[in-house]
Amino acid sequence: MLKQFIARIFLKMGCPEDQADKAADTLVTADLRGIDSHGVARLSGYVQLWEAGRVNTTPDIKVVHETPSTAVVDGDSGLGLVVAPAAIKVALNKAGSTGTGWVAVKNSNHYGIAGYHAMEALKHDMIGIAMTNASSLVAPAFSLERMLGTNPIAVAIPADREPPFVADFATTPAAYGKVEIQMRKQASVPAGWIQDAAGNPTTDAFAVKKGGAMLPLGSDREHGSHKGYCLGAIVDIFSAVLSGANYGPWAPPFLSYLPLPDNPVGKGIGHFFGAMRIDAFRPAPEFKLHMDKWISRFRNAKPANGHARVLVPGDPEREMTIERMQSGIPLIEPVVKDLQQLAQKFSIPLAD
Amino acid sequence: MLKQFIARIFLKMGCPEDQADKAADTLVTADLRGIDSHGVARLSGYVQLWEAGRVNTTPDIKVVHETPSTAVVDGDSGLGLVVAPAAIKVALNKAGSTGTGWVAVKNSNHYGIAGYHAMEALKHDMIGIAMTNASSLVAPAFSLERMLGTNPIAVAIPADREPPFVADFATTPAAYGKVEIQMRKQASVPAGWIQDAAGNPTTDAFAVKKGGAMLPLGSDREHGSHKGYCLGAIVDIFSAVLSGANYGPWAPPFLSYLPLPDNPVGKGIGHFFGAMRIDAFRPAPEFKLHMDKWISRFRNAKPANGHARVLVPGDPEREMTIERMQSGIPLIEPVVKDLQQLAQKFSIPLAD
Repeated sequence: MLKQFIARIFLKMGCPEDQADKAADTLVTADLRGIDSHGVARLSGYVQLWEAGRVNTTPDIKVVHETPSTAVVDGDSGLGLVVAPAAIKVALNKAGSTGTGWVAVKNSNHYGIAGYHAMEALKHDMIGIAMTNASSLVAPAFSLERMLGTNPIAVAIPADREPPFVADFATTPAAYGKVEIQMRKQASVPAGWIQDAAGNPTTDAFAVKKGGAMLPLGSDREHGSHKGYCLGAIVDIFSAVLSGANYGPWAPPFLSYLPLPDNPVGKGIGHFFGAMRIDAFRPAPEFKLHMDKWISRFRNAKPANGHARVLVPGDPEREMTIERMQSGIPLIEPVVKDLQQLAQKFSIPLAD
Repeated sequence: MLKQFIARIFLKMGCPEDQADKAADTLVTADLRGIDSHGVARLSGYVQLWEAGRVNTTPDIKVVHETPSTAVVDGDSGLGLVVAPAAIKVALNKAGSTGTGWVAVKNSNHYGIAGYHAMEALKHDMIGIAMTNASSLVAPAFSLERMLGTNPIAVAIPADREPPFVADFATTPAAYGKVEIQMRKQASVPAGWIQDAAGNPTTDAFAVKKGGAMLPLGSDREHGSHKGYCLGAIVDIFSAVLSGANYGPWAPPFLSYLPLPDNPVGKGIGHFFGAMRIDAFRPAPEFKLHMDKWISRFRNAKPANGHARVLVPGDPEREMTIERMQSGIPLIEPVVKDLQQLAQKFSIPLAD
C-alpha cells in the first residue's frame, strides 16, 4: 500500500515510527484529496532535502516562547510533515485551556497541504487555521522580483450533519502544481497566472523557469493583485516574522539542488497555526446547526448558466477522496519512476 | 471642520459625546486615507438607518460570552462605528492578559473601514485584525445568486522606524465604491468585476443594480474566484456564525429603504476582531526591526516595466493622508448636497 511504502521510506531516513506514519498520512491525504502536487509526488524531494543535510529526522521540536494563548515552536530542522502536527497539537492544547491557541513555527520546511493540519482541529469541535511561507516564486503587484511563496491559507470549520467547511488555497490564481502540469503537456497557461522575466504578462508555462514569476491572486492591479499580494504578505509575516524564520525572498527552497539564500534572516521556513474552540464563542451544537444551514443555503444557491451547482469549500476534495478511495490514486509516469528509484535506493519492495 | 460637523450630527441622533467623536473620526479617517466610499459620503446613510429605527444610538454594548482569549459582544443595534471600538477594546484587553484576544460581534451594522479598527492595535505593540460581513452583493463561484457581502479583511502590523504594514481590502476584485464611481461617470467597468442578472460576464457598471452581482476576488474560476469566495465565506462565518449575527444572504442591508431579509438567522450584521501581542511571540523590538527589514526589502524590490516602485500595504493610504491633511478632503457634488440637507435637517451650520 502506498501509505506504508511512504512510511517505510521515512523510517529508513531515520524518522521515529509514529512520525513516519503521520508524515505518510499527510502525503497520501493530499493525493486522496486530488492535490497531486503535494502528495507522493513530493516524496523524492523530501529525500533529496534529507540527503543534502537540510532535514533532521530526529528533531528536538520544542516550545521556545509562550503565553496562555500563544507559542513559538522551533522545529529543529525537522520535516515540516513532522513539525506541523507537533505545533498544531500545542495550538489545540492552548485552545483547550484559554479558548484559542496560536502557534508560530520557525526552523521547519515544507509541511504538505495546509488543509491537513487545519483539519486536525475538527475532531475537537474547533476551527483550525494553517498557513506557511515558502520559497519565493511570486512577484508582488508592480514587482519584477519574486518575493513571496505561493503561501497558502487553510481554514477548517466543523458542521453537524453537513461535512465540514474546508478552504485550502494558495494565494495565487492557481497553484504552481497546475503550471507544472501544463509544462508536462507542453501547453500554455491562461493569461493572468504568470509574468515573464521582463515582468510582462505571458501564457508561456515555462516562463517561471526562465526567470519569470507567479502572479498574486487577482492577477493584475485592475483585478486586485494588490489584494493577493497582501494575503501572501500576511501569511509570510505571521509564519516567519512572528516566529523567527526566514521571510520573503530569504525563505529557503524546497528543491535541494537550489542554493540557500545568502545572509539568512531567520531559521528555515515558518508556519502559523490557529485553533479556536467553538464553545469559546457559542455552544458548539448551536454553532454547528447554523453551519449546516450556512452550507445547505450556499450549496442550494441558484447556479449560473453552464454550472450544475454551487460548491461549498471542501466539496471537490471530499468528492475526489471518495472516488480515489474506491479507484485508487492515479500516479503519472515520472512519479512511478521516482518511487521505483526510491524503492531501489532504500531496498524496499514497491508493491503495485 | 468636517469632523466636528459629523460628530454634531451623531450627537443630534442621540449618541453620547465620546461615541459621536469616535464615529466621526472613523469616517474622516476613511476620507483621509482615500477610501471615499466609506467616509462622510456614508453619513446620510447612517442617518437614514437611524430614521428607519434600525439603529440604537444609546446601545447597551456588552460581552455575552467569554473565555480568557475570546468574547462575543452584543452590539444592541448600535452604530457599527460605535460597537466596533468597544469590541476591539475587549480584544486588546484579552490580548494584554493572555497573549491574544478574539472577539465576534453580533447585532451591529456598518462599521466604516475595517483598517481603522485593526490599526487600534498598533498603539499597543499588537497586530490588529478586523473583518465584517455585509449585505449580499457577491455571487460565489458558479452562483447566479448574491450570497456574500464584499466582506473586507484588515490586518495592521507594527514596525519600528518604518510605518506600519496595513492591509485593508474587500474580498472582491474592486470595492463596490469603484463601481459606483463608474456609474456616476456613465462609464463601463473592467471585465471580471461583475456579472449580469443571467450570470454572464459584463462590463456594464449598472449590471449589479439590474440584478447582477459582484464577483469574488479572482474574477473567474480559471483565475481563482473560488479562492475569493473562500475568503468572503471565512469572513462571513467568523463574523456572523461565530457571533450569532445574520450570515450570507440574511445579512441586513445598509440602505434603509431596502427591506430586511425574511426569517433572520441571527441579530444584525457581525464583525470579527483579533489582537495579538507581538511579545506573545518574540520580543517586540526584535520583531519590529525585522518588520523594518521586511518592509524596506519589499519596497526596494526591482519594479516591473512601467512601474516606479513596489508598494507595501498601507503606503498608498498613508501618502493620500499626507496629501489630504494639507489640501483637504475633496467632496463630490452629491456628497456636498447630502451634507447641506443634513445641516438643514439638524439645524447645524455647515462651515466650508
